[in-house]
Amino acid sequence: MAGPLLLDDADDPRLAPYRAMRERDLVGRQGRFIVEGEVTLRLLFSRGARFRAESVLLAPERWPGLEPFLRGIDRDDALPVYLAGKDVMSAVTGFPIHRGVLAVGLRGGDPEPDALIPPAPAPALILGLVGLTNHDNVGGLFRNAAAFGADAVLLDSACCDPLYRKAIRVSAGAALTVPFARTGSGAALLDLAERHALTPFALTPGGGEALETLQPPARALLLLGTEGPGLPEVVMERARRVRIAMAPGFDSLNVATAGAIALHRLAGDRLART
Amino acid sequence: MAGPLLLDDADDPRLAPYRAMRERDLVGRQGRFIVEGEVTLRLLFSRGARFRAESVLLAPERWPGLEPFLRGIDRDDALPVYLAGKDVMSAVTGFPIHRGVLAVGLRGGDPEPDALIPPAPAPALILGLVGLTNHDNVGGLFRNAAAFGADAVLLDSACCDPLYRKAIRVSAGAALTVPFARTGSGAALLDLAERHALTPFALTPGGGEALETLQPPARALLLLGTEGPGLPEVVMERARRVRIAMAPGFDSLNVATAGAIALHRLAGDRLART
Repeated sequence: MAGPLLLDDADDPRLAPYRAMRERDLVGRQGRFIVEGEVTLRLLFSRGARFRAESVLLAPERWPGLEPFLRGIDRDDALPVYLAGKDVMSAVTGFPIHRGVLAVGLRGGDPEPDALIPPAPAPALILGLVGLTNHDNVGGLFRNAAAFGADAVLLDSACCDPLYRKAIRVSAGAALTVPFARTGSGAALLDLAERHALTPFALTPGGGEALETLQPPARALLLLGTEGPGLPEVVMERARRVRIAMAPGFDSLNVATAGAIALHRLAGDRLART
Repeated sequence: MAGPLLLDDADDPRLAPYRAMRERDLVGRQGRFIVEGEVTLRLLFSRGARFRAESVLLAPERWPGLEPFLRGIDRDDALPVYLAGKDVMSAVTGFPIHRGVLAVGLRGGDPEPDALIPPAPAPALILGLVGLTNHDNVGGLFRNAAAFGADAVLLDSACCDPLYRKAIRVSAGAALTVPFARTGSGAALLDLAERHALTPFALTPGGGEALETLQPPARALLLLGTEGPGLPEVVMERARRVRIAMAPGFDSLNVATAGAIALHRLAGDRLART
């Protein structure tokens, strides 16, 4: 990188992708997304991350700490790094910027769901989300998918965007590293399971099979729906319905938490036990 | 109950405990707390809930649906029920009220931690929280404690208040039903464990014992600390350090999620598997 550029005008056109962040999050960003914070920035550039960065915007006092890292990942001098005071950053983004670390990522093309599933007979653990519209839950599930080594997350068309700013943050950056793709409907997830020899599990409080005693298969698809209505019957009837053992009278878990417990179980011997 | 009272003046003194909710949450409420929403309201009055309500405030259109329930739990006509339009409710509370269901609860005296632990040799599962200052995490942990049948939650003095409005909401009301008490320091939790023959487990990514293979004892204390610094060494050195198996390279779980996985494991055969 040639060196960072100090920008002191909030109207500088190079800062346009950072403008009015909250509003733009709601209407979409033409193939861009926003990354906040140092941990997430480092994940955006980590090996395995699928996205490219368009630019980085730092408060000047963050530059010395991040310079070695940014020079290391940008050996061909292609990444613009802008510096701007937190007052300028806040004026551009429309809300108070505390940590002084932002970047714009480029979504690139959406991968095909089939391409993300490890070919049989290799082990595979895929998370399938149906109708999840809460960014905290989707972000949390990406974090859990990363923690338990899921190969990919597949989302039906009703799910919210994992690259929404808050979802990335709650995912602890895992939305940038765990491969994901969209399927059309929930039923398409079951078709994928059939094509790829994945055993589909529908997590539901009324499941006839106990998660605690099932023998995790080498290739599994874990399906999760919303906390209220749950998975649609058309999805559940084609899957093994499993439940998490709970205390009588309070059968209520957050969907990301329930997903973590099920992923942990289904990952089984795949996890590091060092 | 004599019947609900329609109040149309935001300055009515009977509405004082509902005033300026957000600000009051920050400075405390002299023994009161606020409950929002129908599900939580019902839990406030459920068998096993330890708190009394001082009053209920409903949007008029919520009264018909809740009347049978409220008459059923208030057979001695002691509970004031106020009705006010959502505009009045919003003016009193200081933010937009959508669901139109609020109540003021009375904290009462704090129980002694010792009193909440089932006497040996009965089974016991106690959750001990050290330094958790995030209301989402504390609320989520109460929800998980309820789901997995923990007998009580003990919090050191650094933990935030489980009866803060947001913590109650995230707990899905479990903060009103799972018994809890304050201990002074984290070390006091270990003293309690000794006095009550509870096996203390410290959940930590660096734990030498795998959660997946341990045999849950009949009486356990699960200790959780903050995501960053974790549990203090003075606590961990007196406990069995356990870790959750995770994928290499991403050993990061939300503390409430990690707690759910550990509670689910430690509850073992106590959970309904019907």
